[in-house]
Order: sequence, then C-alpha cells, then structure tokens
Amino acid sequence: MGYYFDNAATTPLLPEVKQVMHEIIDNSYGNPSSIHRLGREAKTIVERARKTVANTIISSVGEVFFTSGATESNNLILFKAFQSLRVRRIISSPIEHHCVLHSLEELEKLGCEVILLNVDNEGNIDLDQLRDVLSQSAKKTLVSLMHGNNEIGNLIDLTTIGTLCKEFGALFHTDTAQTIGKLPIDVEASSIDFLTGSAHKFHGPKGIGFVYIKGDHKLDPLLIGGSQERNMRSGTENVICIAGMAEALQQSIDNRELWQAHIKNLRKQLKEGLKETIPDIVFNGNQEYYLNHVLSTGFPKSKNSDLMEVNLDMKNIYASAGSACSSGTLKASHVMQAIGADPNRKPVRFSFSAMNTTEEVDSMLSLIGSICHG
Amino acid sequence: MGYYFDNAATTPLLPEVKQVMHEIIDNSYGNPSSIHRLGREAKTIVERARKTVANTIISSVGEVFFTSGATESNNLILFKAFQSLRVRRIISSPIEHHCVLHSLEELEKLGCEVILLNVDNEGNIDLDQLRDVLSQSAKKTLVSLMHGNNEIGNLIDLTTIGTLCKEFGALFHTDTAQTIGKLPIDVEASSIDFLTGSAHKFHGPKGIGFVYIKGDHKLDPLLIGGSQERNMRSGTENVICIAGMAEALQQSIDNRELWQAHIKNLRKQLKEGLKETIPDIVFNGNQEYYLNHVLSTGFPKSKNSDLMEVNLDMKNIYASAGSACSSGTLKASHVMQAIGADPNRKPVRFSFSAMNTTEEVDSMLSLIGSICHG
Repeated sequence: MGYYFDNAATTPLLPEVKQVMHEIIDNSYGNPSSIHRLGREAKTIVERARKTVANTIISSVGEVFFTSGATESNNLILFKAFQSLRVRRIISSPIEHHCVLHSLEELEKLGCEVILLNVDNEGNIDLDQLRDVLSQSAKKTLVSLMHGNNEIGNLIDLTTIGTLCKEFGALFHTDTAQTIGKLPIDVEASSIDFLTGSAHKFHGPKGIGFVYIKGDHKLDPLLIGGSQERNMRSGTENVICIAGMAEALQQSIDNRELWQAHIKNLRKQLKEGLKETIPDIVFNGNQEYYLNHVLSTGFPKSKNSDLMEVNLDMKNIYASAGSACSSGTLKASHVMQAIGADPNRKPVRFSFSAMNTTEEVDSMLSLIGSICHG
Repeated sequence: MGYYFDNAATTPLLPEVKQVMHEIIDNSYGNPSSIHRLGREAKTIVERARKTVANTIISSVGEVFFTSGATESNNLILFKAFQSLRVRRIISSPIEHHCVLHSLEELEKLGCEVILLNVDNEGNIDLDQLRDVLSQSAKKTLVSLMHGNNEIGNLIDLTTIGTLCKEFGALFHTDTAQTIGKLPIDVEASSIDFLTGSAHKFHGPKGIGFVYIKGDHKLDPLLIGGSQERNMRSGTENVICIAGMAEALQQSIDNRELWQAHIKNLRKQLKEGLKETIPDIVFNGNQEYYLNHVLSTGFPKSKNSDLMEVNLDMKNIYASAGSACSSGTLKASHVMQAIGADPNRKPVRFSFSAMNTTEEVDSMLSLIGSICHG
C-alpha cells in the first residue's frame, strides 16, 4: 500500500468512522428539517454530533454550527465579523492558511485594516508586537491566529493570546484544523470567541466541519436559505458526514493521550533517523513547542532533491512537498517564504497519525536514504 | 418501515450509490489537492464525477463546480452576479426557494432592484409581465427562476425563458434542484447562464451539489482559500459525496424514461384515489404541466385535518405538510400564500420516487381514508 505520511493534508477514516458512515448510508435518509419520524431521526443524529463537538471544546451546544469545512467556517467568521460585528481591524500572521489570508485580502479591499504580525525564522509570532498593536487603536479588532500551523507545526498558546485579546477588548478567532481532537481546548478558559475545525484532519470525512461562535456574538449567516442550524447556516445538513465527524472526534478524544504519545515517538524516530541518514538536513519551525504530527524538513540540494516529490511517490511514500492544501500546485509556500527558509533546500513535510507505525518509519528512512544517496 | 412520500424533501440513496460510497469510504482517502498518487486517485474520482454532471446538462467540464448543495450554489450565483458581473436588477418569482428569496432580500439592501413576477392561483408565472419588465430597463439584469417548484410541482419551460432572456440581453439562472436527472436539460439549447442542483433530491447524499457557470462569466468565488475547483470554490472536496452524487445522477439519467413513467402513474393513482376517498380535496399548482413526482393537495377541514402531519406520521406515512425545506418549522408556506391557497385547507405534499410502488399508494390511500373518516 505504501507509506502515508501526509496526515496534515488529510487523514484516513478510522474503522469506527467507516462503520458509522456505512450504517447511516444503509439505514437513514430523512431530511433533518422534516417534522415526521424519519426527519426527526436524522435530526437526532445531527444533534448528537453537535453535542460531541460542544463537549470537546467545552462550549454549549447552541454555539456549535456545522459547515462544509474549515474554509467555509473561516470565511464565515472573518467576513461576518466585519459585516455584522463591524470589526474594522484584523490582526493575523503571514503563516495562516490561505482561506484566512485570501479572505483578509478581500476584507482589506472593503476597508478593513489588516495587520500581519512578524514571525521569526522559526515561525514564532511576535507577541510583544501583538500587545503593542492591540494597545494602539480604538478600532474594533479581531485577532485571527491558527492554533497549529499545517506546514511547520508551530503552536500558539491559546490562553496567552485569548487573555491578551480580552485585556484589550479584541475578539479572538482561532483555526484549530490541525489541533482539534489532538490537543485539549477549552473555549471559555482560553477566552476564544470563534473557533473552526475540519473533520478530515482527525480521521473524519472531507467536506464537513464546524464553527464555534460564542453565544454573545450575533453574526449574519454566510449561506442564506431554509434556516437550518438555527438560521446560522442554511442548506440541508450532510447527515452522513456530520455523524462521521462526530465519531472521529470522539475517538480522537478518547484515545488522545495514547495517540499523541505514539505520534510524538514517530516524529522523534523519523527526525533522528533523517539526521543520521542526511546529516545536512534541517527542520523548519519551532522544535521545542510543536504539533506532534508535523515534521517539516529541508533537504539539502542533491541530484535527486529537486524531484523529491516524484522520487518519494515512486517509492510509495506519500508526504508533502510544501503545503498540500493548495490545489495541485507546487508554488513556493507562503509559509516557507515568511520564515525565510533557504530556497535552495527542498521542503518536505512528513505528517503522522496514530495509524502510522515505527516499522513504516524505519522502512521509509531506508527508502529516503536510497533516494538521497542513490 | 412505512410509506415514504417525501421525495421532494429528500430521497433515499440508490443501492448503486450506497455501493459507490461504501467503496470510497473503505478504499480511498487521499486529498485531491495532494500531488502524490493517493491525491491523484482522489482527484480522478472528482473529475470523473464532474464529467457526469457536464454530460447531463450538455456543458463542458470546465463549467461545472462542486459545492455543498443548492443553497450554496444559489447564494453563489446571486451574490456574485451582483458583485462580479454588476447585475443591478434581478427578476424572480414569489414561489422560489427560500435560499433564493432570502438572498434577494439581502441583495435589495445592497441596492439591487428585485422584481418578483406575478403568479396566478395555479402558480403560473406571468410571462407577458416578464417580457414587459425585461424590455423596460437598461440595467444589467438576471432572471432567476426555478425549473420545477418543490411545493406545488409547477414547471417552467427553460427554453422559452432562456430565449426571452437572450432577446433582451438578460442573464438566466435556474435552480434545477427538483428536475436535474428527472427532465432533460441542455444549457446551451436553453440559453442558460447559471444552473444549480443538489444530489439529495435525486437519490444522492445530502450536503453536496453543483453549479454550472457558463464559460463566458467570470464570477468571484463565495468561498476563498486553497483554490480548489480552479479557484471557483475553495475547501477540500467532499470526495465521498461527490462520487455518490455522480453515481446517483448517472443512474437517474440511465433510467429516466422508465422511472418518470412509473412516477407519473403513481401520481395519477394517488390523485384519483384521493378524489375518490375525499371528494372535496383540491390539488395545488398547474395540473397540466407539472413535475411527475410532486402532488400538492389541500385537505378539507375535518376533525383530523388540523393535525394531519401527526396523524400521517402515526400511520408511518411520511409526507410534507407544506414545504419541508424550512428547518423543522410549520409556518404558513410562502408558496401557498403566493398562489392564494385557501388557508382553511390543510396543505399536504406527497412526493414520489422510482422506489415507491403502486402497492404503497394503495395502502396509503386506505390509511388516509381512515384518518379523514375516522
């Protein structure tokens, strides 16, 4: 089958998730908006899933809304914070996902001030600058920072940022696509106003996600229609994928410590093995405080490194040359540029899940050795 | 199990669709944006599905984009026609779906002129008025009319409207949620600029749909991010549901004549049976030119008619009291109001699929008799 180390791009479905989805595919088809029994049964599936998400982030169920994924969720928060809450300044960073950065470009055209904080060459956000900037303006402000970076694995401390935002009366939005289910999150304790997530990053299906909107905030919906999701997100609910997402999240929570320990070990094993095999390799991002499942590497120039993605692919190693979230393209990553990564090095991101094994890492290491020294 | 006659609200998955979805759930998980083999395999599934949709409406594949359903598709067309194409007048009707009507309310606030055409008490749109209105203004105009009405089953002739739009230089958008896969559609022959559809109305999964955008028109996307769908709709593709949708559409096309003949017979059987059982019953909408799968009825007042939805439910008859697309509510339907339906009558919509049988209709008729005469 090969070596799948691209879990920051997307993850395989867990067996339990497959089972839940198979079961709903076979047995349930009501429209959750229908008031008859088949509709109510579908509605129950959706509401049970909502409870799972709410429990995970310690919010109330009324603050969780289902969407088609993190892209929609992030678009919703950014555009509607501007439109409905009259946010006129957004503080973010240059290493956010494109669904945030490109939205900010559009919002800037609409008159919103956008400030991208400095990041150092490890990808750490300048928190002193954040404090300075927060203190400098009376404009209604939203801080939008991803919890864990998909390319280099950097983490922010949600409570530190949330507390700072609260101190200056700014709203706090965090994209947890890479962390939900992997790290404990408490929206109240971390003073989070808006939080987004996507099922396919935690062994759920693609095309489904959620958004947390703190009860105090009344946003207009991004999609208008039949008033589903208490009018926050119209469109018939994707019952199959919502149920799959909830099961994936529950499994991730139930096994979190075990899985994270395993993944942390895999990362260490690969990192040390790579250093041994390719002494000149470098690792991108903060190597002290990071996502366990992401290892971003910079391969030294060699006759095979330019076509590294092809060479890996031929050995059935599935990793990501740069970011894997931009449609099929191999442009220089905006994250690598932002941290000033050496353009002569070939960036390869290996990303792990609990389904990977130490044996896979061993085999992959020897294959990578054969590519680089072959 | 019961009698499912709510197929205009949503449809059961076809066995072939279940099989395709089961298969992808079990065997495919790559991110279509990843450039390695697993990504390319997922991409192939998505592109094959796109071809199926394009073949169905006789468009080129580059004009079809996947979305989370008809609501998103319709929002996209209406808002971006205003924003990107500078449409400043939209002509529509009062019997459109809420995802169109509520979008038009928002667009009116943004300065777009909105004209809702008159409908008669059969729900027929005033085509003379359409011609008049089209001839009266130099504003850039979009005509947005659904192909088949979800509540009363009325149809418009796409080519008549499209030709009229073309004559006056107006753009033509049609929501085919109720007709795609059921009636032949040719976007070129009918001069359609924008067309939307949703899988769960033709035995595909919920939460997936598509939009056709004629190649000439450059719309900005509604969702911004990783540039999927050639930048027209960002967000990781829902591969499982996209494949399910394509299979459902292909099956619908392959069996169209057979299924439509069967459904037409079921409708006739139920209609005649109801007239016999409840001589005072009325039927809403045009009874000459209609969707075969929709029969909208008005039950006379009786001691059991007020709670008709409960009584039907108790007999395991799943039909819709009014529209079933508005989240769990039982408000007086805007469509019934628009056609001036007698508010003293209880509207019940029966809607059919090829999976219904004449035996079911017979049994249901006797159960309805027992409710109304019980």
